[in-house]
Amino acid sequence: MNVNVNELHQGIKEGDIRSLSRGITLVESRLESDYVLADELMDLCTPISGGSHRIAITGIPGVGKSTFIESLGSLYIEGGKKVAVLAVDPTSTLSQGSILGDKTRMEKLSASSQAFIRPSASANTLGGVARKTRESIILCEAAGFDTVFIETVGVGQSETAVRSMVDTFLLLMLAGAGDELQGIKRGIMEMADILLVNKVEEDNMEKARIASSDYRAALHLLSGSSDQWTTKVEMVSSLNGFHMKKARNLMDEHWVYLKDAGRLQAERKEQDIAWFKDALREEILHQFYEDSEKAERVKRLKEAVENGNTSPLVAARRATKN
Amino acid sequence: MNVNVNELHQGIKEGDIRSLSRGITLVESRLESDYVLADELMDLCTPISGGSHRIAITGIPGVGKSTFIESLGSLYIEGGKKVAVLAVDPTSTLSQGSILGDKTRMEKLSASSQAFIRPSASANTLGGVARKTRESIILCEAAGFDTVFIETVGVGQSETAVRSMVDTFLLLMLAGAGDELQGIKRGIMEMADILLVNKVEEDNMEKARIASSDYRAALHLLSGSSDQWTTKVEMVSSLNGFHMKKARNLMDEHWVYLKDAGRLQAERKEQDIAWFKDALREEILHQFYEDSEKAERVKRLKEAVENGNTSPLVAARRATKN
Repeated sequence: MNVNVNELHQGIKEGDIRSLSRGITLVESRLESDYVLADELMDLCTPISGGSHRIAITGIPGVGKSTFIESLGSLYIEGGKKVAVLAVDPTSTLSQGSILGDKTRMEKLSASSQAFIRPSASANTLGGVARKTRESIILCEAAGFDTVFIETVGVGQSETAVRSMVDTFLLLMLAGAGDELQGIKRGIMEMADILLVNKVEEDNMEKARIASSDYRAALHLLSGSSDQWTTKVEMVSSLNGFHMKKARNLMDEHWVYLKDAGRLQAERKEQDIAWFKDALREEILHQFYEDSEKAERVKRLKEAVENGNTSPLVAARRATKN
Repeated sequence: MNVNVNELHQGIKEGDIRSLSRGITLVESRLESDYVLADELMDLCTPISGGSHRIAITGIPGVGKSTFIESLGSLYIEGGKKVAVLAVDPTSTLSQGSILGDKTRMEKLSASSQAFIRPSASANTLGGVARKTRESIILCEAAGFDTVFIETVGVGQSETAVRSMVDTFLLLMLAGAGDELQGIKRGIMEMADILLVNKVEEDNMEKARIASSDYRAALHLLSGSSDQWTTKVEMVSSLNGFHMKKARNLMDEHWVYLKDAGRLQAERKEQDIAWFKDALREEILHQFYEDSEKAERVKRLKEAVENGNTSPLVAARRATKN
């Protein structure tokens, strides 16, 4: 990219949306030649980042994430907040239509000068998405956004990665019939700080009540004894605004809980170190496989393992021998 | 170690317990000089392995794992089976007493010529335990054991690793009061193929019934729609033998299920490839950190991340630069 990093940094610092957009495009770039510039930009922005409430919003397709974010985001903005929305979708290369559609669906937010919506179009691998999203959060914060929503598709793959980059994890569910958790991958419910049954209107109020109570029971069974925060369960309708202020208050309640006793600081530090370790591991492996001779050897040994001829551990040792 | 690998292999093949013991000691050895011998032994034993039902038995301390294994193992032996028991305990350096005690507590099994009990004393890191245990399983199979129990402490760390090396995952629980799942780390229950409420005697039969029904409900909520096997829940007493034959039958039911339609073969192949990938990753990382200059650089950059001066990703890129 043809950019001046210092100008870009200056623009971001001043809250210029165009600079922010270009900054994210830079860190998302897959050109090796852009890495140095991206690294410089990150070095400038990292020290002025960290000031936002980072919130993941997840749920299966059809649960109403866009409408919910539109509704919740508007409440934040009415309260004087600046809201950034980032989408994490490892399958986005397959479903760009729906992703781009999201932006249009968030009409109110799109129109507000206090909101920034960034569909993630360049997602290809999950690791890639996660890394870019983390850096995008930092750039949004450097640009003065105090609330960052990360929208994920909720099909399981991306949630663990996203969980490690947010402060609050919000799960949207539907009041289905019978098997309430079908479609939600094991373990995702356990990551939720707040669980909202969405699309609760008059005609399914009773069903939603039963679902909520089922969720509460399941979460109670699953909760660890050391947890000080109990997952909150509530019913909402982002369509007609039912309980949306309650939802907004739950977010704040969790935020206050985190800020208490240095919890937030400790958790973020932990996340940063975990992120560093993950990225480092990836870089080291990347370097190894750049050696085509070694890559070829790995391939051969993997076949031997598949055919049951070699113990996997022995094969691994042989693959790395110099 | 001063060993002749061919003799050791011959002994193992003939089912000689002393050779099997020495073989496991060899693969557990941390001396680099033993690696070549260990690899040779694994190469000889791998092609004659794979013939056992690999079963993990887990549960929190106090749930009665040893007595249960003693009781279940005896049923297997009465049915003409050969049973090996391996212990996986990442904390064993701290609690060698209890591990060594296990062997004494399994009196009946210890006395049988058809059983082999191997406490894992050398466990230090979890990765280490997992690797050694996998190789130990193979050696036991090469020695003709058709049933291998892997006993784990059930505190969460080791279960995921163990899950990836067995065919059947059995979780022992107690009928507590109220919060049934306290003490069991999130996610472990979801890995179970069979869940047994242990220590069910006359005085707590009613409590156990309620607990079983709670577990069934929770598991039902958690089960994925694609699962063809529903986790079985049963009450047992390994002390007085109550329902132990039922438990034995459940094991067989799961075994038959796995053997059906090539499921077992497919799963084991998947496990082997995953094991190879894991081990390979570890070896590559190990090599990287052997370079003391790089290790030092990583340390410095990690500090910069901790102090919030550098973005974790940027730091990772810099750490690996040549």
